[in-house]
This record gives sequence, structure tokens and C-alpha cells, in this order.
Amino acid sequence: MSETGGTRPGGRSARVRASVHRAVADLVAEGVRTEDLTIPVIAARAGVHATTVYRRWGSVAELLAAVAEHRFTGDVVVPDTGSLGADLERWAGDVARDLADPDSLALMRASIGAGETAACACTADRRSQIAGILEHETRRGGEVPEVDAVVDGVLAPLYYTALFVPAHERGPAPEDRVRALVEKLLGGAQALTP
Amino acid sequence: MSETGGTRPGGRSARVRASVHRAVADLVAEGVRTEDLTIPVIAARAGVHATTVYRRWGSVAELLAAVAEHRFTGDVVVPDTGSLGADLERWAGDVARDLADPDSLALMRASIGAGETAACACTADRRSQIAGILEHETRRGGEVPEVDAVVDGVLAPLYYTALFVPAHERGPAPEDRVRALVEKLLGGAQALTP
Repeated sequence: MSETGGTRPGGRSARVRASVHRAVADLVAEGVRTEDLTIPVIAARAGVHATTVYRRWGSVAELLAAVAEHRFTGDVVVPDTGSLGADLERWAGDVARDLADPDSLALMRASIGAGETAACACTADRRSQIAGILEHETRRGGEVPEVDAVVDGVLAPLYYTALFVPAHERGPAPEDRVRALVEKLLGGAQALTP
Repeated sequence: MSETGGTRPGGRSARVRASVHRAVADLVAEGVRTEDLTIPVIAARAGVHATTVYRRWGSVAELLAAVAEHRFTGDVVVPDTGSLGADLERWAGDVARDLADPDSLALMRASIGAGETAACACTADRRSQIAGILEHETRRGGEVPEVDAVVDGVLAPLYYTALFVPAHERGPAPEDRVRALVEKLLGGAQALTP
């Protein structure tokens, strides 16, 4: 987190942060051109001085990293249904729904465009979510794949489709795609949701 | 392709196109901030009038789409070694090397930031490269996976890593990772390069 400033929740500093984050999210969702997403434009939308934004975040890239981290951290609940297959399917379904949301996708694209730090903020939480799901299964005495195998087998294909496949060229509906990816990952051996 | 203009190769129109493409690629590789990659800045770097750039490409997003399409189309040779595993491994190795190149990755990030059209231009050619590899194997009488399975199993993990995993957190060296992904895709049944 590169943000500094006041720590009183609900204080002026928190209000500035909320309005600036909201301004960035709104501008990106409205399809602002990347070259028009400048600190003066963001400050004007948020109703704060540009110098405040420069002082606190330094650059649009750092600001996008903060907004993406806030938006994508803790956004998906780690399910605990009692079966690994069903947990993975529910979790991946939430991720896929998030990626299908135009505003989330626009924020992710803008963050990737801003550079590595902001890009990585978009997926920062995903590995610990996977680790949580696998830990539940381990405690139930089940065999589990590696976290990396879940990233490669389920997460990566969902992100690749969201970023690089035009909407009209996508194959199966998100829930069918998620189910197929989880089934393939688990070798068809684990029961999925009926 | 949204570009219009002269068709004489080597003519003025082709020279303008080359300088403008080069200016975009250079600015992105130099780490220009997204909000500073404007048409006047690009035009100044290319030594052409801004109005020429506006007239021909319309926006930074369309220009990035054209540059990405030019850069990433035909950039990887479809190999024909006589074995599916070796062909896939060589092709995916080329893709991984491309993704490990900081200038290519910077152009890809900027293109994704510019929106769907420019983002999709970064991978436009990949499906037909995969189809070419699979066709060679089919002609040799071998069994082949679906193009989608190769995208999900090999391409998506490589792009996910390049975009979302910080360099210092990456696991195995690119060539080992490529080999493992291809082996997993083919179920270990196909011989890979020794």
C-alpha cells in the first residue's frame, strides 16, 4: 500500500480516499481514454485539489494500484460446502462473474495498462483464496492439487478469455466453462455440484 | 484494420505509418505514463503533424491496436519438427520468450489498457498458429487436442504469469514451465524434445 495520510476512520482523509477511489472507478467505467485519465481530471471529479492527489498517490499508476487492490481484495468469499469440487466451482464461478462485469473488467484493463504493480493488485488475493479452499479439503482428509495447478488450470483460462477473447467469440456460458475447467483439473474424480 | 491511406509501399504514407508505429513502440518501451501517451506526444516523436495522426488513426486506442496487430501477428513461426510435443514446446517457448521481453510486455500492457480491440490484437494470431501445429499432427495420423484445450492449457498460463505474477515470484524457468505445461496437456503420452 503506497497510501499514507490520516488513519482516523471516517475522518477527512478517509473521505478524500473514498471520493478519489470512486472518481477513478467511475471514470474508468465510463470508458475514459487512458490519455484522459489524469490526476487533474480525477481530482476535479472527486472534488478535491489536484495537489492533494499528487501528494497522496504520486501518479495515476499508484492510484490505480490502490483502487484495484481495494476493489479486488476480499471480493470473493472462500466457500466451504464440504466438497473440494463444489468449493472450487463456486469460487471460480464468483471469479468468472466478476470478470464478466464490464466495470470490473474496465478497471482491470486500466490497471494492467498502468504497469506491473497495478496489474498484480488485480489478482493479489486469488492465491490465498485457493489456498483456503485446498486447506479445507486437506482438513477433511482429501487429496488436493497444488495452488499453482489451480491457477494454471482454472484461473488463467478465465482471465485469458476475459482479456483476449472478444465477447462474440466466447464459447460456453461462464458456469459451464467453470465446471469443465474444475472437472478437468480434478481429473473427473471429484464430485461436483449436481 | 482501421488504417486507411496510401497503398504504395515505400511511399509517404508507408513512411508515416512506420515512424508513428515506431514512436508508439519506443514511448511505451521507455515507460511513458498512460496519461502522457497522447497523439500530440506521439506525433512529435514521429516528426509528423498531430492532425495526420488523428486523421489516420483517430485515437490512441486505435493506434495501439494497429501497432499491437503489426507487432504480434506473424511474430512466432509455426514449427514442424515431426512430433506434436516438440512442435508445441518450440512454439510455446517462442511465445514465452516474447512475453519475457520487457518491450513486448510493455506494448501488451498498454494495448490491454486501451480496451478490447487493442487487447485482442495482441493474441489475434495465436489460434491459427495452434491450428497449424495440430494440422501437421493430424496429417501425420496422430491424435490431437482441441485448439481451445491448447489455449487453456498452455497459452493462458503463460499470459497469466506474464501479466499478474511479479518477476521475483515466478517459479520455474520459462523453458521448464513450457515443457511441464505441454506435458500436462498431452498427458505425458507424447514424446517431447530430449
